[in-house]
Amino acid sequence: MTASTKGIGFAVARRLAQQGAHVVLSSRKQENVNAAIEQLAAENLPVSGTVCDAEKTEDRKNLVQLALDKYGGIDYLFSSAATEAVSKDILETTKEDWDENLNLNLMAMFFLVQEVFPHMQKRGGGSIVLNSSVLGFAGIPTVGPYSVSKTAVNGLIKVLAPALAPMNIRVNGLAPGLIRTDYSTRSLIDAGERMKTVSGRQGDFQELDQEAFLGYLQTIFGFSRLGEPEECAGIVSFLLSSDASYITGEIIVVGGGYRSRI
Amino acid sequence: MTASTKGIGFAVARRLAQQGAHVVLSSRKQENVNAAIEQLAAENLPVSGTVCDAEKTEDRKNLVQLALDKYGGIDYLFSSAATEAVSKDILETTKEDWDENLNLNLMAMFFLVQEVFPHMQKRGGGSIVLNSSVLGFAGIPTVGPYSVSKTAVNGLIKVLAPALAPMNIRVNGLAPGLIRTDYSTRSLIDAGERMKTVSGRQGDFQELDQEAFLGYLQTIFGFSRLGEPEECAGIVSFLLSSDASYITGEIIVVGGGYRSRI
Amino acid sequence: MTASTKGIGFAVARRLAQQGAHVVLSSRKQENVNAAIEQLAAENLPVSGTVCDAEKTEDRKNLVQLALDKYGGIDYLFSSAATEAVSKDILETTKEDWDENLNLNLMAMFFLVQEVFPHMQKRGGGSIVLNSSVLGFAGIPTVGPYSVSKTAVNGLIKVLAPALAPMNIRVNGLAPGLIRTDYSTRSLIDAGERMKTVSGRQGDFQELDQEAFLGYLQTIFGFSRLGEPEECAGIVSFLLSSDASYITGEIIVVGGGYRSRI
Amino acid sequence: MTASTKGIGFAVARRLAQQGAHVVLSSRKQENVNAAIEQLAAENLPVSGTVCDAEKTEDRKNLVQLALDKYGGIDYLFSSAATEAVSKDILETTKEDWDENLNLNLMAMFFLVQEVFPHMQKRGGGSIVLNSSVLGFAGIPTVGPYSVSKTAVNGLIKVLAPALAPMNIRVNGLAPGLIRTDYSTRSLIDAGERMKTVSGRQGDFQELDQEAFLGYLQTIFGFSRLGEPEECAGIVSFLLSSDASYITGEIIVVGGGYRSRI
Repeated sequence: MTASTKGIGFAVARRLAQQGAHVVLSSRKQENVNAAIEQLAAENLPVSGTVCDAEKTEDRKNLVQLALDKYGGIDYLFSSAATEAVSKDILETTKEDWDENLNLNLMAMFFLVQEVFPHMQKRGGGSIVLNSSVLGFAGIPTVGPYSVSKTAVNGLIKVLAPALAPMNIRVNGLAPGLIRTDYSTRSLIDAGERMKTVSGRQGDFQELDQEAFLGYLQTIFGFSRLGEPEECAGIVSFLLSSDASYITGEIIVVGGGYRSRI
Repeated sequence: MTASTKGIGFAVARRLAQQGAHVVLSSRKQENVNAAIEQLAAENLPVSGTVCDAEKTEDRKNLVQLALDKYGGIDYLFSSAATEAVSKDILETTKEDWDENLNLNLMAMFFLVQEVFPHMQKRGGGSIVLNSSVLGFAGIPTVGPYSVSKTAVNGLIKVLAPALAPMNIRVNGLAPGLIRTDYSTRSLIDAGERMKTVSGRQGDFQELDQEAFLGYLQTIFGFSRLGEPEECAGIVSFLLSSDASYITGEIIVVGGGYRSRI
Repeated sequence: MTASTKGIGFAVARRLAQQGAHVVLSSRKQENVNAAIEQLAAENLPVSGTVCDAEKTEDRKNLVQLALDKYGGIDYLFSSAATEAVSKDILETTKEDWDENLNLNLMAMFFLVQEVFPHMQKRGGGSIVLNSSVLGFAGIPTVGPYSVSKTAVNGLIKVLAPALAPMNIRVNGLAPGLIRTDYSTRSLIDAGERMKTVSGRQGDFQELDQEAFLGYLQTIFGFSRLGEPEECAGIVSFLLSSDASYITGEIIVVGGGYRSRI
Repeated sequence: MTASTKGIGFAVARRLAQQGAHVVLSSRKQENVNAAIEQLAAENLPVSGTVCDAEKTEDRKNLVQLALDKYGGIDYLFSSAATEAVSKDILETTKEDWDENLNLNLMAMFFLVQEVFPHMQKRGGGSIVLNSSVLGFAGIPTVGPYSVSKTAVNGLIKVLAPALAPMNIRVNGLAPGLIRTDYSTRSLIDAGERMKTVSGRQGDFQELDQEAFLGYLQTIFGFSRLGEPEECAGIVSFLLSSDASYITGEIIVVGGGYRSRI
């Protein structure tokens, strides 16, 4: 698993560990890996973990090798991504912003799948869930390059699923809506700040508080409330399980009604 | 539950009963209701059931009343439909074919939801799954009016979800691909027969056997194999459960990779 | 053409007449037919027209017969629909509302196509445009049965296109966003009135004026301004023309950026 | 315009020149630029042109500068892309293949828009059409990284449209199906060759000829015949024109019925 020490990734890791899976966590930061392992150990859920910058070939190989060494094989993969600079207006996007989003959210995910699938093939099959976003279906200009990268993840799922089906490997996606995480909270504050100063396009917000802003977003995007990371864990666990044996190539929106696609 | 005595509906009923739910089956035919109840009783799964032609207001009311009388309230609804005359070319569709598909697959489903939701509201919430089809996303001319009715079911889910969200009622859809049921088997044979005689548009099938035809369909629609009814039961059970608390307004394709939508 | 005496339908009729097409208008009301013919005559655009309630088999036959009698054949069809009771909350939808929307917007349209296509086939081909709506992609609960019927129209286009392709007949859809017509204006006022009294779900609108409400809708649905009926005419004319010879089965959104689908 | 010296791009350039537009062609190869200019000159259609590798910042700036120098401003942009190595199986995709597709088809297009839009803003508005593909909606594993890049282009259009709407700049997409071009012909042959040797997933093609293969593709993807480059030119011309004033953020499929999305 990548990006699994906080937020949605961590909730998924905990859920899988609770269900008895052998979990290998990873994150780009050692302290996050340590904190996640300690927290789960305190819940009597022993997991392994390593630092992994999934953009780096060597790191991807190490992560896979750790799973093989520890548990002798790989059956499941949940791959998330933790871009820092997501809340970027599309018109102000620099080459650096662009590369950060497209490399971390998309390229790294693809090449991790390439690293992993031969090991699933050896075991006779497997199940992969890639973390996308509702923004992949209904992009927002002020979260521009991130939105584009997530649309691309959806496309990636669509070509990987039929390619891996003959090996009995399923590939699906999770498309979370607005989930209460560090990232979404920061995005909300960022977006709110921008709206206070940038008048015009999105209405007039002279005295914006976060509560009002959330209400505003709910109206625009049609969801009922913020989701919790744990509310994403059930569907990932389900998609990875054999109970989902006839589901592949699908992207499941967990958005509380977020207006996305038909 | 409607149309729950055979195929997908029956698999869902059994699954829910196995998980301890109080299930009320229904079907348009008394013998199907009896057979289903007997079969589940033999598996030590006691369920209730009644004849219900969901096109009739009175029958819908009776079905709901039975659930209330038996169990004191309604928390979940799975509504399927069992059209007989599905495999109809769109160009040869009569007013009777049209009405049969649009009334049974769509209208009856909608008014059953209308009958049920106030009872969920009294209980503080609930969860509804409507049975759609991949044909709702990728219609086939030779299954014309059925395809149109299923596209409409998808639209219905999209407007019901936000309308019922304030009552804490979630509404989702199941979109099965080609599942091994009486209906799909009959459709395959019908379609194969038609292809033998109608040359041109779909290639040349002088000596068609069902196996070859299935391979042909797999190539066209991209799925890996026929699904089993049981492979639809897990996701319905999941969507109805509180584990799916942040999923509403979504339609989940269970199609083994069937080419449907991005 | 159906529903072609006002709004979008009229704008399309005028545009086609300007380009030299032989146009047969229709509407359910004689005075609307007369007014439209007079208006176009005053612009030196002679067109024919007749009363036609497209829900009635006889009326559809008469409309087709008129075109055949006048001009010897049919090459193009633009079919719209003019439901009166569109702005209906899905939860309050009666059987009467349901039937009105599903029959007029969907059933009538389908059977008109059935009536027309053999005449196109005789001429060696033709082009059909059916009027759908962005609400078919992104339904709104307070315009419930209308939204569902328009989703179904999209499904109908998808099955008609491959069925008619061997006859060299193309079938596409127009999906207008919020266009300045009698209907949209009335809808806006209706919706605004409802919002004033129904607090909660959609914010608080004690003193709503139409201008503020429009701004509010723009924010929610992402479009830049109201469209004009004439802004739908160009694309319909284009789709009907041979310039669109390789476009079939597509639904074109004319919504000024209205948030609809990827 | 980029990639406008052959195939679809060239057909669009010719069409716009026929309608009196001042056209600036470009391509990565000088001989292609020369040939295109000569050909159009022979048709009495004078256009400008330059070599431009749109992946390079400097080249993009030069292309824009040429248009400004020649004609004093920019009103329209059609941006295509001409990847050489498109027909690549997703499972065999190297980092080099990946970068080639994602950089040329997506990144270069985005930064060209960034270069161009301020000049449109100065003129009070403009219209942009980006070349996507049906593979962006319905990706094919054997054209893997290309499919992903085109899905991403669709996402890019969706975020650019609302961002540029306040400047009166519209952004739409063209999604061609299988068009008779050097690229599609080569792809067909490549794919056919692969199918002959790789048995299993896609059926058995011992003695494949191109005609049979085309019939096979038609059955799979539902289109009626190969399209001609000229059949893409009309819609691009239309979308760029003021006749499409209320169409923005849309992607128009020109696929002869190619099975893509609802």
